[in-house]
Amino acid sequence: MTAAHSPEESSRPRYTYLGPEGTFTEAALLQVTGPEVAELLPCTDVVTALDQVRSGQADRAVVPVENSIEGGVNATLDTLATGTGLRIVGEMLVPVTFTLCARRGTALRDVRRISTHPHAWAQCRRWVAEHLPATADDRSDAVVHVPATSTAAAAALLSEGPQPFEAVLCSHLSAVRYDLEVLAENVADNPGAITRFIEVAAPGPLPEPTGADKTTLTVHLPDNEAGALLRMLEQFATRGVNLARIESRPIGDSLGRYSFSIDAEGHLSDERLREALIGLHRVCPVVNFLGSYPRADGVPPHLRPGTADADFRAAREWVAGLGSH
Amino acid sequence: MTAAHSPEESSRPRYTYLGPEGTFTEAALLQVTGPEVAELLPCTDVVTALDQVRSGQADRAVVPVENSIEGGVNATLDTLATGTGLRIVGEMLVPVTFTLCARRGTALRDVRRISTHPHAWAQCRRWVAEHLPATADDRSDAVVHVPATSTAAAAALLSEGPQPFEAVLCSHLSAVRYDLEVLAENVADNPGAITRFIEVAAPGPLPEPTGADKTTLTVHLPDNEAGALLRMLEQFATRGVNLARIESRPIGDSLGRYSFSIDAEGHLSDERLREALIGLHRVCPVVNFLGSYPRADGVPPHLRPGTADADFRAAREWVAGLGSH
Amino acid sequence: MTAAHSPEESSRPRYTYLGPEGTFTEAALLQVTGPEVAELLPCTDVVTALDQVRSGQADRAVVPVENSIEGGVNATLDTLATGTGLRIVGEMLVPVTFTLCARRGTALRDVRRISTHPHAWAQCRRWVAEHLPATADDRSDAVVHVPATSTAAAAALLSEGPQPFEAVLCSHLSAVRYDLEVLAENVADNPGAITRFIEVAAPGPLPEPTGADKTTLTVHLPDNEAGALLRMLEQFATRGVNLARIESRPIGDSLGRYSFSIDAEGHLSDERLREALIGLHRVCPVVNFLGSYPRADGVPPHLRPGTADADFRAAREWVAGLGSH
Amino acid sequence: MTAAHSPEESSRPRYTYLGPEGTFTEAALLQVTGPEVAELLPCTDVVTALDQVRSGQADRAVVPVENSIEGGVNATLDTLATGTGLRIVGEMLVPVTFTLCARRGTALRDVRRISTHPHAWAQCRRWVAEHLPATADDRSDAVVHVPATSTAAAAALLSEGPQPFEAVLCSHLSAVRYDLEVLAENVADNPGAITRFIEVAAPGPLPEPTGADKTTLTVHLPDNEAGALLRMLEQFATRGVNLARIESRPIGDSLGRYSFSIDAEGHLSDERLREALIGLHRVCPVVNFLGSYPRADGVPPHLRPGTADADFRAAREWVAGLGSH
Repeated sequence: MTAAHSPEESSRPRYTYLGPEGTFTEAALLQVTGPEVAELLPCTDVVTALDQVRSGQADRAVVPVENSIEGGVNATLDTLATGTGLRIVGEMLVPVTFTLCARRGTALRDVRRISTHPHAWAQCRRWVAEHLPATADDRSDAVVHVPATSTAAAAALLSEGPQPFEAVLCSHLSAVRYDLEVLAENVADNPGAITRFIEVAAPGPLPEPTGADKTTLTVHLPDNEAGALLRMLEQFATRGVNLARIESRPIGDSLGRYSFSIDAEGHLSDERLREALIGLHRVCPVVNFLGSYPRADGVPPHLRPGTADADFRAAREWVAGLGSH
Repeated sequence: MTAAHSPEESSRPRYTYLGPEGTFTEAALLQVTGPEVAELLPCTDVVTALDQVRSGQADRAVVPVENSIEGGVNATLDTLATGTGLRIVGEMLVPVTFTLCARRGTALRDVRRISTHPHAWAQCRRWVAEHLPATADDRSDAVVHVPATSTAAAAALLSEGPQPFEAVLCSHLSAVRYDLEVLAENVADNPGAITRFIEVAAPGPLPEPTGADKTTLTVHLPDNEAGALLRMLEQFATRGVNLARIESRPIGDSLGRYSFSIDAEGHLSDERLREALIGLHRVCPVVNFLGSYPRADGVPPHLRPGTADADFRAAREWVAGLGSH
Repeated sequence: MTAAHSPEESSRPRYTYLGPEGTFTEAALLQVTGPEVAELLPCTDVVTALDQVRSGQADRAVVPVENSIEGGVNATLDTLATGTGLRIVGEMLVPVTFTLCARRGTALRDVRRISTHPHAWAQCRRWVAEHLPATADDRSDAVVHVPATSTAAAAALLSEGPQPFEAVLCSHLSAVRYDLEVLAENVADNPGAITRFIEVAAPGPLPEPTGADKTTLTVHLPDNEAGALLRMLEQFATRGVNLARIESRPIGDSLGRYSFSIDAEGHLSDERLREALIGLHRVCPVVNFLGSYPRADGVPPHLRPGTADADFRAAREWVAGLGSH
Repeated sequence: MTAAHSPEESSRPRYTYLGPEGTFTEAALLQVTGPEVAELLPCTDVVTALDQVRSGQADRAVVPVENSIEGGVNATLDTLATGTGLRIVGEMLVPVTFTLCARRGTALRDVRRISTHPHAWAQCRRWVAEHLPATADDRSDAVVHVPATSTAAAAALLSEGPQPFEAVLCSHLSAVRYDLEVLAENVADNPGAITRFIEVAAPGPLPEPTGADKTTLTVHLPDNEAGALLRMLEQFATRGVNLARIESRPIGDSLGRYSFSIDAEGHLSDERLREALIGLHRVCPVVNFLGSYPRADGVPPHLRPGTADADFRAAREWVAGLGSH
């Protein structure tokens, strides 16, 4: 990213995102802002995009965090987990289907080498095997994957001239932007695949609660015993807080030590969530708060009896009154 | 009890207790006050003693609550549980051994009928069988029990003249007070038997925390499912609050519905106990707070990591600070 | 009890019960047998009735175990808990209302002293206060309680001649049997009061499962920590076994040490109950099995998914097959 | 892989592994076999290596499953989870440090483009930033990453002739095998990084228990409620089974639905593990058993009281005996 921060741009918010242009991340970014109101700054990787926000060179970053097929995006989870100075302020969902495209004049049957990001390849492998099968019995002419740093990077490269691959799997946006010929649309082994992106800012006032919110945390367990994970989860369960996602990530100091990345249902302003956080802080050696923000799907939590804000307040008032009469 | 409240007595606190004079309850009462500073008012039963406090006619009541052999004293547990307007402010322990005594001139071998309270009888039965065995093979001359409303009442009756029993099992205090001849001292099947008594007052400022306190509660469960008791107990466990006693008592409306009488370790001023109470109030249909008071044995709780007041305060401050930066 | 075991009676089963004749226990006994087929032997207390079975002098004993107002019958719970050689084989429910009766010619207004068992007194106290109120302001002429070893014993005594009490509260059966004049029927502060009785035998084949059974246990906890009771209960909960009753009883060696008397839903032949027992045996220092028997109310348990016998068998077969292929 | 299965090779076991030659996977493979006793068959990806075993064309596969920095290898976890016909029979640990190497005559300062697998790049990024810093303020000449399908593939490519990158980060084995010049040894941001590999076979007799074993499972939860994960974990905790690893993976049908990949301590022949499996099978809609095998680190589990095989057997015998006496 070219970080020159010229004066005339200073009034527009600066958004970094996982580039290059034409990626699914850009599609997510365009859900929350656009080039007419913000400066959009593609970065070569997630870490760089987030570091720009942490250092104050950018106002917001949009990065992928989870794919319904591939799971969590480790670079995002780990950068948020170990770092400070970052807060998630929103999430966006983008359906993920691919476009197979090539330089003009290339026929589908000519394609033996396809370049794309490894995650994209993983989501199209079955489609490729069916539509571009090996012809020889020994499978020696099966289509091979040429890895790229992003789906858009592959498209950009191919648009510049012949490459050691005939086609790319990228977003429809990339196919249009790099003027490639579309060989197949809606390529996807799982038609309902979705990637979830997050919008990240420096710490500041939290987004207002909407009634359908998420809170993201990273938690270390006190020890590796059977009961440690159980005791951590009980801090949520006793307050009726549901978990939307829990993923373990290696702490990195040795094999077998994990932290947990958690999306809990609710907002920091919800009593039940505050109580759960207070409990976690007491029993876990590390608890990082990574933000409360509206759910992209707008689904409110199913509250069990005794877990609404009013229940907590009534209980607290009852206890407060016990000592005085 | 004669409830006349004459002016000249109004400056002395009035203590009711389970009478008559000479019971173990009086021995417990004398641990906390005496006739020189307070008016001591024996009552015929626990309910009456407690009602005098509730109605304001007495300042304090001393009643038994638990015996190490017989278990909980139902009248005490039930009167506290269903009633309002009462708070436990202290507890006293009294070792329970009995004195077998009779009218002057009675020999041990003459004793075939013994009067005492049924609980006392239960705690001396084996001693009686060994020391006053049946002589005939058909056991038709085995010593029989003549029930009395209290150990002291039996002694009082015998001191008045011949009765349909030759001896009584009572406290040493009663034997002396009613001038009976002691046939055997330290009668007890279980030499270490102890009765726990409580001192009860009208609601008011709680006794100061000492670091070794108890809090007594009555709790109803939301339903009778397997998990309901478990969920109630988790409200204590997630905050590291130990239970010193838990007893079920019938709610009384139908067979199979129980309330739970609980002594939790800690004082209302302890953070972990307040949090547990807040949790109970949310998930249980009924929670009655019956007082926080010093433990008679002075044993402080074993605190697990993360459950001290400082841990709760640090956690709460951490959460409070999350929203603002 | 007259223990002579004459030859001509040897073919009839011998039933002991908490006597004397005319008690509610006899009413319970008559639900399961009768004088035409069995020898009915009243005993002076619960311990004696049970000991006769343990020693082989009787075949069965019927004793009270729980009252919907008074709670558990300690003598029964403790004798079963600490003893060996006894098994519960059935339970019976008896509605408990009392008859106030006196010698012929006594009017209700003459009654100032009433004899009955303390539990009966506790269940009629409000009725007495309403129907036989004190006339003087100082309550010095309030009706007083003269304790008896049983409701029937009081009735028997009164039938023999004038006593230091004018009336008794006993069962209707006793009023008829001892030919007393009925002053009031259906005396009870709680009209729905019920006492539960159990039929006890020496160990032998268990009653057949009916689909609506109970299993009674006594359990000691490994330690007094907050989590010990929780971990014990989890052994039931993880197998979906509901508890119909749980009562703590002092172990007796020191204050603050309790055992738990438990009625679990289900029969020893139910897989979920066997698994729970296996778990209890592993984690608790003492587990006493006191019998599986049909519930008196015939209500089958509400089974949660995955806890039926078929689920356990399918799971076990699955695991058994894993090693071999 | 060349799948011709010639007669003379049929007596030697066939091992597939994640190729090409020279990868860390080959180093892991060489811990359990070698070219003198087995046919070693590099595959282009994890899925292919495992499919060869499932179809019977190979006897064993060695693939990476987890890295102490990068976390789980999704392709391995997902292929095992959804597939049938595969069992883990062993695990191997390989320390992961990299060698930076280039064509002869290349100096460290000439390196601006480095090819390697993205995971390797992630583990060396900091080293590169320190040892090959950007010279210009605008960072436009920072070293860039050229992704490769494997560290060994990058090395192989560079050995064939000039490429659009000057250097590769690969294993020392690859540097030697492809005759590249070593520019730096032991390149690693985290010197203690370790990758765990597994050896996979078709279902058959399990490896013998060693006392320090692992069992790998994939489990689906009955629903997404707060308590579902808790209830699943309790099946392990109530039997004292510790978890060495738990990772969530998307089920793939929609965002927010996860399966859990679990390494539990213990062998299928351990009673506590069998009981936990029986419990899981009852409460979870899907439980896949993926093998019991010796831990690479040889560390035996810490057994809590009541969870040894003898405890389970004693408990089972106790229960079995209850019905008959």
